[in-house]
Amino acid sequence: MSSRRSFITSVAIAAPAVLMANGLASPEKNMFVHHVYFWLKDPGSKADKDKLVAGLKKLAKVKTIRMSHIGQPATTNRPVIDSSYAISWLVIFKNKADQDSYQTDPVHLKFIDECSALWSKVVVYDSVDV
Amino acid sequence: MSSRRSFITSVAIAAPAVLMANGLASPEKNMFVHHVYFWLKDPGSKADKDKLVAGLKKLAKVKTIRMSHIGQPATTNRPVIDSSYAISWLVIFKNKADQDSYQTDPVHLKFIDECSALWSKVVVYDSVDV
Repeated sequence: MSSRRSFITSVAIAAPAVLMANGLASPEKNMFVHHVYFWLKDPGSKADKDKLVAGLKKLAKVKTIRMSHIGQPATTNRPVIDSSYAISWLVIFKNKADQDSYQTDPVHLKFIDECSALWSKVVVYDSVDV
Repeated sequence: MSSRRSFITSVAIAAPAVLMANGLASPEKNMFVHHVYFWLKDPGSKADKDKLVAGLKKLAKVKTIRMSHIGQPATTNRPVIDSSYAISWLVIFKNKADQDSYQTDPVHLKFIDECSALWSKVVVYDSVDV
């Protein structure tokens, strides 16, 4: 097996792809994009930010999650960019049913129980295929 | 070659993965998540919505885009969910340099030229690894 072949295979196993890449058709339809932005009660607290990130890392283990990304604002700066949030949480589900299941998953409920005291505001954008 | 093997390989080629999947470490670091939400001047115009989607499909061909997804609000409905936008545009770049290049790419400038008259508001969230 060539090294290129090994790389492609390992990437596929690490992250089953559901997004459209550079104009190619997506291998899956009806994907569900769930993007959450958190504002902290104490934005200056590194401890609170770390606690939220630790909570999200545990939350990422929910079985119906296909892909996830824990983010923080980039350094980009234009009038249309909202960089006032502390942490972003991008999750891709295979479909709406999997997202619905995630909402009531015990791991998700535990995350809310352990971390909801940290944030002052949450904004969620749920998107499906056009 | 087994059918399973064929599936994995084809998915990998269609969408080189940069996201973390279900708790596994991401194969790439420093990824850049660019998520744009568009509100239309005429939200009831299917023609305007179709024109924006058509523009985004052309925009998806920018070379530095690793993955993209054109979305519309899901049917989920909770107080924290903002479903007032018309179209979402999720783009994953390998790093900030690729995103910076995208901003001035002729394909992007043409998209803005052709489609900016359609929207009344744009909100952008740029996120990088924590």
